[in-house]
Amino acid sequence: MQYKLSELIAKFGGILKGEDVTVTSIMPTDKALPGEITFFSDKKFAKELPMCKASAIIMKEADLDKIDLPAIISDDPYLYFAKVSSLFNPLPQLARGVSETSFVDVTATIGNNCAISQNVVIGKKSVIGNNTQVYPNSVIGENVVIGDNVTIYPNVTIYANVKIGNNCIIHSGVIIGADGFGYAPDNKKERHKIPQIGGVCIGSNVEIGANTTIDGGTFGPTTIENGVVIDNLVQIAHNVKIGAHSVIAAQVGIAGSSVIGKYCILAGSAGIADHINICDHTVIGAYTGIGKSITTPDLYMAAYPFSNYKDYAKNAVHIRHLNEMQQRLKDLEKQFEQIQGDANVHAKT
Amino acid sequence: MQYKLSELIAKFGGILKGEDVTVTSIMPTDKALPGEITFFSDKKFAKELPMCKASAIIMKEADLDKIDLPAIISDDPYLYFAKVSSLFNPLPQLARGVSETSFVDVTATIGNNCAISQNVVIGKKSVIGNNTQVYPNSVIGENVVIGDNVTIYPNVTIYANVKIGNNCIIHSGVIIGADGFGYAPDNKKERHKIPQIGGVCIGSNVEIGANTTIDGGTFGPTTIENGVVIDNLVQIAHNVKIGAHSVIAAQVGIAGSSVIGKYCILAGSAGIADHINICDHTVIGAYTGIGKSITTPDLYMAAYPFSNYKDYAKNAVHIRHLNEMQQRLKDLEKQFEQIQGDANVHAKT
Amino acid sequence: MQYKLSELIAKFGGILKGEDVTVTSIMPTDKALPGEITFFSDKKFAKELPMCKASAIIMKEADLDKIDLPAIISDDPYLYFAKVSSLFNPLPQLARGVSETSFVDVTATIGNNCAISQNVVIGKKSVIGNNTQVYPNSVIGENVVIGDNVTIYPNVTIYANVKIGNNCIIHSGVIIGADGFGYAPDNKKERHKIPQIGGVCIGSNVEIGANTTIDGGTFGPTTIENGVVIDNLVQIAHNVKIGAHSVIAAQVGIAGSSVIGKYCILAGSAGIADHINICDHTVIGAYTGIGKSITTPDLYMAAYPFSNYKDYAKNAVHIRHLNEMQQRLKDLEKQFEQIQGDANVHAKT
Repeated sequence: MQYKLSELIAKFGGILKGEDVTVTSIMPTDKALPGEITFFSDKKFAKELPMCKASAIIMKEADLDKIDLPAIISDDPYLYFAKVSSLFNPLPQLARGVSETSFVDVTATIGNNCAISQNVVIGKKSVIGNNTQVYPNSVIGENVVIGDNVTIYPNVTIYANVKIGNNCIIHSGVIIGADGFGYAPDNKKERHKIPQIGGVCIGSNVEIGANTTIDGGTFGPTTIENGVVIDNLVQIAHNVKIGAHSVIAAQVGIAGSSVIGKYCILAGSAGIADHINICDHTVIGAYTGIGKSITTPDLYMAAYPFSNYKDYAKNAVHIRHLNEMQQRLKDLEKQFEQIQGDANVHAKT
Repeated sequence: MQYKLSELIAKFGGILKGEDVTVTSIMPTDKALPGEITFFSDKKFAKELPMCKASAIIMKEADLDKIDLPAIISDDPYLYFAKVSSLFNPLPQLARGVSETSFVDVTATIGNNCAISQNVVIGKKSVIGNNTQVYPNSVIGENVVIGDNVTIYPNVTIYANVKIGNNCIIHSGVIIGADGFGYAPDNKKERHKIPQIGGVCIGSNVEIGANTTIDGGTFGPTTIENGVVIDNLVQIAHNVKIGAHSVIAAQVGIAGSSVIGKYCILAGSAGIADHINICDHTVIGAYTGIGKSITTPDLYMAAYPFSNYKDYAKNAVHIRHLNEMQQRLKDLEKQFEQIQGDANVHAKT
Repeated sequence: MQYKLSELIAKFGGILKGEDVTVTSIMPTDKALPGEITFFSDKKFAKELPMCKASAIIMKEADLDKIDLPAIISDDPYLYFAKVSSLFNPLPQLARGVSETSFVDVTATIGNNCAISQNVVIGKKSVIGNNTQVYPNSVIGENVVIGDNVTIYPNVTIYANVKIGNNCIIHSGVIIGADGFGYAPDNKKERHKIPQIGGVCIGSNVEIGANTTIDGGTFGPTTIENGVVIDNLVQIAHNVKIGAHSVIAAQVGIAGSSVIGKYCILAGSAGIADHINICDHTVIGAYTGIGKSITTPDLYMAAYPFSNYKDYAKNAVHIRHLNEMQQRLKDLEKQFEQIQGDANVHAKT
């Protein structure tokens, strides 16, 4: 695969500076070889530019003096890079067709130009859109609807009653639609299972990371809107709704019935308690547990600051006595005020 | 499926109030349609009752004035709902029989009325009870014993030497009996693997959520007692024992050889260090790490409270200096006492 | 299997004390039966020694007075136990050969004496070393290179472009080489996927726990060096490098491009932010989030100490006001100094 800079500009915009060279790949400044294009978007890599062997570069106009190479001028070189890299490195495509060792129920429907790999099982009445590929050993249950251009990697499990839109990528080990964690306790505190019949509804352009679990809703569907990206080992409980274009980093947990707004970012290992509402454009820091709804978009944090163990041990012990410390401070202030009062009285007399 | 209220009462108890109508499904008050039964157990939904379209309701006697519908009177409408919903929505049942594309070792035994799906592999000398169903692509190792009426969803892995009781539900991606994490370091701090030969022993009526991992014990089995329910992405290390009817929420981690009592609740992302004992009826809050044994049942918490980043940054920095702050407070108190002492002396002179 | 003590000593060193008996298994002091060997390495089990039924024991010379049994004297009885246990309990071995229900691409290469089980799929141009065993239903992508004596348990997924050394153990549900979590946001804050083409490179003697995920790098490989051991449900993001012989406990998360040194230990649920460097021999405590690089080897901690809810609620509320508390303390100190100054002046006058 190769493109002239002018061909890239025709696809993605930008302005050509210098010779309209041909490039065969895109690489960062320290890895690019002659014949490849690179990009400059982060000042901390400026010192690498003089050594760069690339034949062309994507950069801002303001940085043009930093290197003398044929360039595509863009306001957002990093975004431009992502687009060019996607052009040079399209998602791998399986050979089309239905493998002899797959099992597709006779009542299921497979679209045009699909790849259904070895040992895939597709249940009753399920519908797979056009140009969708399912890697080996994935299992798709009954009454599942999957859109067009979807990629399902190996060893994925999709339970019954799940809907997935177009252009989604589901990584290996993902489990969509397992039973939500719902029980009614009896008077002996033993648990009686509450059936979870709501399924899952996932929009288009969603990517779901490896071994992430998205449970099915109790009565209505757990919902992931368009453009949401979810990292690995994330837990999304039943009845949760995640608004469009939100970003959920690895190992985040979202408990039952919580609603995450649009364009939110939840950093790694953050957690949202159940029945919480998080407004649009909210950012939750790593390791931060949210136990109350948030109505003002901001960055919220709750990571206990680390230190070496010696300092940790000295300081952490006081956490359990903060209330007492606060009370002692208050007492001192009060007594102090009194002394000052006395002193004033004294001074006046 | 349809039942008269009197038929539900014959099964689950309660008292009929009003007409003995027939119902076809159970739904919450805001979703129920004519012909369906609903339930009222949480006061916060009282305002929805006037709009409710259900044909019957499960409620407490004390609430009968809130809506005029044929009713089943129950002391615990939520539990009653769980039972009725389980009646209307039984666990899905696979077609019985052993799939041609499954592999069952000749020395393994399959009970009556089982469903062994496509691409399932069952190892040597394993025994599957009656009426048990194994979904596609699950793998069951050697010397495994599984009871009656068990459901194993797709892509589950059960290693050798695992026992599972009756009526259990194992969700997709669960791994039972992988090697516990045990190594002996040498004098270069390199790790030598300690074989883990103890297996896993799981009681009856246990449900295990998607992608949860339960490691095999070192010498004796890791043990999950009857009625335990475990959510998704939980880690249960080797030699752990979880007492009957305990509830383990998503992403909890329990380190090696710890013992959780009966009727405990571990909320999401809680963690238990190794060799810890937690007494019966203990509740551990979300995000709470437990590093010492607990002998008094109570609710224990350790979640660092979240705030917006500006406030967080201002406050968190002091955590590292609490010991110093405590010392300054002490000094101040001492000096202050002295001043007061002097003042008293002064006053007396 | 049975060995004389002298045969064990020939393999693993140590000194024989007493009769050269034959032993058939190794068990801890409370479980060992006649004919078995046990070990004594932890003083807290000393009280069990008198009841021990073993026929021989591994112990330090200094402890020989504690029990009268034929013994192997070793400076490190625990390490010696690990080696003897590995001798008596070797890793299970599948029957050799390629299953008829596996699919090996015609361009893939399988070494000598391998076991490729049912429903395994191996992609184009992949190379499997000698004596390697792949359990049922695992999927190996294209251009994968796997060394000798590797064990891959059931339902593992290895994406394209992954290299794995010799003597590795990959537990069930592990996903190696899924796409790293990389996106470029546009001006509407929508995410554009950045292709992740760097693959993963894993050394020799590495063990990876169940359902752990190791993402492929963006341009170059995510790297796990020799002798690293990783527990269950761990997330290792793209471009991470983990130094030789480090230990990563369950549910740890390591964010993109971070570098963990050699001989480090990360305890359960610890987390490392992105682009962090952790020096060799560093230990990170459980539940500890690391947001800054560490250049001095030490034990670092950040676990918020737990207490019962009543105490927690009283104390935690002050965390949000520590800055204010610190300010009040400062004010008090200042005013106090002034009073003392006045008092001195007063005293002098």
